[in-house]
Amino acid sequence: MTEPTIDVLGIGNAIVDILVQTNDSFLTDNDLHKGAMTLVSFDEQMELYEKTGQAVESSGGSAANTLAGIAALGGKAAFAGKVKADQLGVVFSHDIRGAGVTYETERAKDGAPTATCLVLITPDGQRTMQTCLGACVEFGPKDLDLAQVRDAKVTYLEGYLWDPEPAREAFFHAAGEAHDAGRKIALTLSDPFCVDRHRDGFRSFIKDHVDIVFANEEEIKSLFQVDDFMEAANKVQGMAEVVALTRSEKGSVIVTPDEMITVPTKPIEKVVDTTGAGDAYAAGFLAAYTSGKSLKHAATLGSLLAALIIQQIGARPSAGAQHLIKALEG
Amino acid sequence: MTEPTIDVLGIGNAIVDILVQTNDSFLTDNDLHKGAMTLVSFDEQMELYEKTGQAVESSGGSAANTLAGIAALGGKAAFAGKVKADQLGVVFSHDIRGAGVTYETERAKDGAPTATCLVLITPDGQRTMQTCLGACVEFGPKDLDLAQVRDAKVTYLEGYLWDPEPAREAFFHAAGEAHDAGRKIALTLSDPFCVDRHRDGFRSFIKDHVDIVFANEEEIKSLFQVDDFMEAANKVQGMAEVVALTRSEKGSVIVTPDEMITVPTKPIEKVVDTTGAGDAYAAGFLAAYTSGKSLKHAATLGSLLAALIIQQIGARPSAGAQHLIKALEG
Repeated sequence: MTEPTIDVLGIGNAIVDILVQTNDSFLTDNDLHKGAMTLVSFDEQMELYEKTGQAVESSGGSAANTLAGIAALGGKAAFAGKVKADQLGVVFSHDIRGAGVTYETERAKDGAPTATCLVLITPDGQRTMQTCLGACVEFGPKDLDLAQVRDAKVTYLEGYLWDPEPAREAFFHAAGEAHDAGRKIALTLSDPFCVDRHRDGFRSFIKDHVDIVFANEEEIKSLFQVDDFMEAANKVQGMAEVVALTRSEKGSVIVTPDEMITVPTKPIEKVVDTTGAGDAYAAGFLAAYTSGKSLKHAATLGSLLAALIIQQIGARPSAGAQHLIKALEG
Repeated sequence: MTEPTIDVLGIGNAIVDILVQTNDSFLTDNDLHKGAMTLVSFDEQMELYEKTGQAVESSGGSAANTLAGIAALGGKAAFAGKVKADQLGVVFSHDIRGAGVTYETERAKDGAPTATCLVLITPDGQRTMQTCLGACVEFGPKDLDLAQVRDAKVTYLEGYLWDPEPAREAFFHAAGEAHDAGRKIALTLSDPFCVDRHRDGFRSFIKDHVDIVFANEEEIKSLFQVDDFMEAANKVQGMAEVVALTRSEKGSVIVTPDEMITVPTKPIEKVVDTTGAGDAYAAGFLAAYTSGKSLKHAATLGSLLAALIIQQIGARPSAGAQHLIKALEG
């Protein structure tokens, strides 16, 4: 077996974020569920967009943010996800490559436009998201480069991609191919509402195909429909080799079949924008994990990168993030 | 004569900025003139764009930024400029309206895409710009709403629009209509290279049609091809009712036919991004001027808004800028 040349291959929605500063009454007036990601049609998104003030556009997508983070930390990163050959498709492609990530998925020539996510940021730094999946729903098994899957230490799947049917199919192809080649499959549960939509599917997919699971407190509780975090942690134990459970300011808990490791994090001075905190944690974790570091080390780097991201506007770190590794390794 | 319902109508290029953090060696390697705005073709811009790292998109355009600033200060603002009916055209239209500016110019259905400006920001906060004018070159007299010109206390023209021929023609139409209705015409010289391209045209247009001129030190020296600021100030005196000359940290000098008023500014702690400093000065100045304040008051508000803008990324202030007025009048 040849040595893998990619540390992490991410498969996810290819989205351009539209970031708007707003206030809580705007959320209430428009019946929006604070903190959630909601799937909407193009027209629904436009209707809301027209009510908002000046915005800024910035490439996003959960797994894409994670892969950009891995590259910023010096890891070898690749991404697969679908845009259309339109202006925002050019923006997404430019930014992921500009972040140092290999990206070669063919652009759709017609059909729905490149996906956009309207991110409403309230003064407390929380984000409420309205996503129009657009061209992302076209991503399917034919877009999967199986050679790339075999060539990656870890293939990282974004839970949100469970929504569009052809992408879900691609997940099973990727998992089969990765395991045949002796590689690992990682999955993030993405969002408690996403878990709610796909609870049974996620549970059996994790049990049968996933080596590394990422979830926050709300997501793992939703997966087992329990109210207590430790109850959820106990239930997930043994379902995968590694389960990394993030708990915001409480740090994270790493669950393996044999143990539970609590890894605390340092307090943050000022939360500016929580967009991308979970994505950044996964980036730090996987960058360390694929370079052979301990699970505790991986969890610590995850929390450090997440802390960096929530103290800035936008979900992707600058190339300068490698100082975190140096700080960690002393 | 009816009272005007618009404080300022701006006519300018409708541009989406692509903001990239870079370093000085990138400018040298690509033969770019630091601090200048250069007109480039779509292909030239794409070639450079592909060499840059992750970017952020934000609506720009010099006069559009000024009008957004006037609206943020509570002024009644309108803008005219051309985008195409494409994704970035939607972004531009959304953002200028979201800033509180009336914007009704018809979008081009075909032809070149919405204009983009690749803004390369170096660590010293300087910006070097490569602009592809795209759909802007379609703006002409037919896009001018003459009723709007008659209804505005001041019609503010962006010097950059002297580049495309049909827009230049629209300037003369606007000037005639404004003066017939007893209103004022303002012009910004935009950029020393723009002055270099159109020196004679600018000089005779100012003498015959402009009431209020905005220029920075380099631009006014370029207009008269002299090396000394005071020599340029003396030469421009009497050519227009009011000439506001900005001098960065030295504040500004207001030149009227009868006097020269030096208005100092406070020092800045940290310059983050100089994009939009001149646009913001014009916004503060015109917001005060159209509410009947003194020239000294107008110059002070201009400098305050410029100071705010260069301490943030991006060229437009948030709606919260009205606190500047309170501070000034307080």
